[in-house]
Amino acid sequence: MLAARRGWRALRRCAALPPARAAARLRVRQALAAREPAGGAAVRVQGWVRSVRSQKEVLFLHINDGSSLENLQVVADPSLGTRDLTFGSAVEVQGKLVKSPHRMQNMELKAETIRVVGPCDTWAFPLKMKERHPLEYVRQFPHLRCRNNTLSSLLRVRSEATAAIHSFFKESGYVHIHTPIITSNDCEGAGELFQIETLNEAKEPAEKNHFFDVPAFLTVSGQLHLEVMAGAFTHVFTFGPTFRAENSQSRRHLAEFYMVEAELSFTESLQDIMQVMEDLFKTATSTVLSKCPHDVELFHKYIAPAQKGRLEQMLKKRFVTITYSEAVEILKQASQAFTFKPEWGCDLQTEHEKYLVKHCGEVPLFVINYPYDLKPFYMRDNEDGPQHTVAAVDLLVPGIGELCGGSLREERLPFIESRLQRLGLADAYQWYLDLRKFGSVPHGGFGMGFERYLQYILGVDNIKDVIPFPRFSHSCLL
Amino acid sequence: MLAARRGWRALRRCAALPPARAAARLRVRQALAAREPAGGAAVRVQGWVRSVRSQKEVLFLHINDGSSLENLQVVADPSLGTRDLTFGSAVEVQGKLVKSPHRMQNMELKAETIRVVGPCDTWAFPLKMKERHPLEYVRQFPHLRCRNNTLSSLLRVRSEATAAIHSFFKESGYVHIHTPIITSNDCEGAGELFQIETLNEAKEPAEKNHFFDVPAFLTVSGQLHLEVMAGAFTHVFTFGPTFRAENSQSRRHLAEFYMVEAELSFTESLQDIMQVMEDLFKTATSTVLSKCPHDVELFHKYIAPAQKGRLEQMLKKRFVTITYSEAVEILKQASQAFTFKPEWGCDLQTEHEKYLVKHCGEVPLFVINYPYDLKPFYMRDNEDGPQHTVAAVDLLVPGIGELCGGSLREERLPFIESRLQRLGLADAYQWYLDLRKFGSVPHGGFGMGFERYLQYILGVDNIKDVIPFPRFSHSCLL
Repeated sequence: MLAARRGWRALRRCAALPPARAAARLRVRQALAAREPAGGAAVRVQGWVRSVRSQKEVLFLHINDGSSLENLQVVADPSLGTRDLTFGSAVEVQGKLVKSPHRMQNMELKAETIRVVGPCDTWAFPLKMKERHPLEYVRQFPHLRCRNNTLSSLLRVRSEATAAIHSFFKESGYVHIHTPIITSNDCEGAGELFQIETLNEAKEPAEKNHFFDVPAFLTVSGQLHLEVMAGAFTHVFTFGPTFRAENSQSRRHLAEFYMVEAELSFTESLQDIMQVMEDLFKTATSTVLSKCPHDVELFHKYIAPAQKGRLEQMLKKRFVTITYSEAVEILKQASQAFTFKPEWGCDLQTEHEKYLVKHCGEVPLFVINYPYDLKPFYMRDNEDGPQHTVAAVDLLVPGIGELCGGSLREERLPFIESRLQRLGLADAYQWYLDLRKFGSVPHGGFGMGFERYLQYILGVDNIKDVIPFPRFSHSCLL
Repeated sequence: MLAARRGWRALRRCAALPPARAAARLRVRQALAAREPAGGAAVRVQGWVRSVRSQKEVLFLHINDGSSLENLQVVADPSLGTRDLTFGSAVEVQGKLVKSPHRMQNMELKAETIRVVGPCDTWAFPLKMKERHPLEYVRQFPHLRCRNNTLSSLLRVRSEATAAIHSFFKESGYVHIHTPIITSNDCEGAGELFQIETLNEAKEPAEKNHFFDVPAFLTVSGQLHLEVMAGAFTHVFTFGPTFRAENSQSRRHLAEFYMVEAELSFTESLQDIMQVMEDLFKTATSTVLSKCPHDVELFHKYIAPAQKGRLEQMLKKRFVTITYSEAVEILKQASQAFTFKPEWGCDLQTEHEKYLVKHCGEVPLFVINYPYDLKPFYMRDNEDGPQHTVAAVDLLVPGIGELCGGSLREERLPFIESRLQRLGLADAYQWYLDLRKFGSVPHGGFGMGFERYLQYILGVDNIKDVIPFPRFSHSCLL
């Protein structure tokens, strides 16, 4: 009883919190958007100094807190300046928001106090005031490059696009599924898998006491697991990391990247899948354009000037569709000489994809119905001939090549069973066959590479510059 | 030129799509919520048969498509029934929506045609009509258990909670960051790490040609990477998979699980962090309760009856706060005998946490200011004494124990530098020290175990039942 009372006294004592400080705290974005000076009330803004300019009569600061690309201008009496108030330092400024006399900004902050919260060793700091550092340069500093305008805009766009993609699917009635990262499926793209082991296994590899009893790998796609879920929820999606151990340091490859994947039951037509791909792309892109206009503008101004205005135009047009066979015909008729000769039955190479996109007017292009022998076991047999195809689709976009890939899935038990048997996989995929035994439905789905999507809409050449912490062959910084 | 024209002809040919079928397609959820019969117009509903009852005059079906827990009742002439129309089969029903005469449902579908899209081998199908299968039973069928009511409700709640968490942070101005899954940081909880290698490395382990040049691991937390980002965006969050190679098959452990993590710059008080934890918890939970009432009710009716009504009550109360030292005092005064004797300086055990939560009235309980020597290097030194603590916080909840953990982070260079030096980690964490050299700010953050959150709000005893594909010691199915 005494213990209980003592305990409760303790609770009461702790519940008494210090009162909030008088001056309301505003993010830079909020301060910039304020319509009227806040009735003379003081506000507090915190952030990092992007520039300092000390004149005889007045001290100008620009501070940024990552809530927007734009900085807030702080106007102060020079007496408020200290030696620590440098580029890169963290500050808290208290004062009054006033209408700015400058055309380019709405509000500015008239400082009453400036406190340097954390100084910055500007000599050692790899970012410099008012310098436009190349992407290659800041890539060397994965822990600091987000303080650079370009990367900070990129990551705001990435965050907004992530939210837009989640919203698109939610509003369309899709259930979000966390498909597993670790999987015992090892069939697809076997050579490029990362395997997982515990440190004990790593130390004694001879004795293969797998943590999971079976070899386990990092997922290359959530599709097969999504198919499980499409058999219960009809429409499902996932948006998570996928992995390839590709030994490539090209500007197109990452070992860890993000995929948006969706699966739709009760779908008999590839067109239905393509419609979702097109809607997803257009909805996410319109959202990003309307929510992050300044961030997008930075890219279309400094990184990819050719991109300016193109996105808006593209959003108004319908995507174009051709068949694989038509694509091969177009390539064969092309006056251009290709390194790889276009031939029915062979994969389309990047050079082919680029030509096709150009040929069709530099718009996103669906290529459908690929050769049966080129595609994985789960794609639906079109039962055509003599050029045997499956109901597969790739979405090609200017400058990038393949952005999305999808297909109808083979829902017919005899077809999928014989195909898995020929591959010697019927035992391993018994569970996948089960999905066709118990209430199987025509279905299909697709995946979109999220980094490629960002590269395309922003015009970023190197995939390492559109992900916070790039992992690739020979590099895993931090 | 000819080629171009041929190409464009092909485009036109493909652009002509088949016209949409006349009857509008509705999800079960939409059909159930329809207010008025749709003006006599026919609708199409697709789904899986949950029950069939054939009477002399009428055939009743219940169909479900995963859009809601509730089934749509289909009323048909018995002549529309076929041998294939069984439990588990997939069907497409076309007909008219009419007001249902039954009190329990709003609308029902008067069938004009019923098409069995995919039959179900009911003898082999492990789920049985109208049976309430135990969670342990369905766990054996990871590819089919989502067709069971309990798991399907669970996954809808999981999807809704995921969306609610994303919304909470977005609306509070946080930038979403994909922190890396593969990392070269190997310090935290070293024994429980999964290491990554390519298949080539696995085959020739002697020659350690790491894919990344350095040993690489699956992340145990995104915190350190989030701290990088909090130095640019002020408020950031991540929501992704984390991994522990814990060799435990308990109902509390998974090798792959999801964490919600947030990091806040310009925060000098642990209370600020606790406020975000409390707000996040309450906002997400209210959203789930209002968006998935039937799904939540199923759990509170059949799985955890004691939970009924408790959540709503808890949402109205403020969470309670005590210090670690007070917690130890409470435990020492307890009449209960503990397996582990409570002692200042020792970790709180599950039995202690349970007692504390009970002692404080079975509400969520913050315990703050833990012993310095118990906690990781990045937690902020409270510089108190003689009982030396750090500004750490754990949120304990009834039935689960620790749901969230957080702290202020040590932002002062000399403090963090000497601590890392003592641990021999100063070189490996040079980048982390850099964050304190260049515009360091007081900051803090927390992580919430997403599966534990779901266990708590739904009253699910075993963590394996709140994730689509559980991975744990000796098990990695599919």
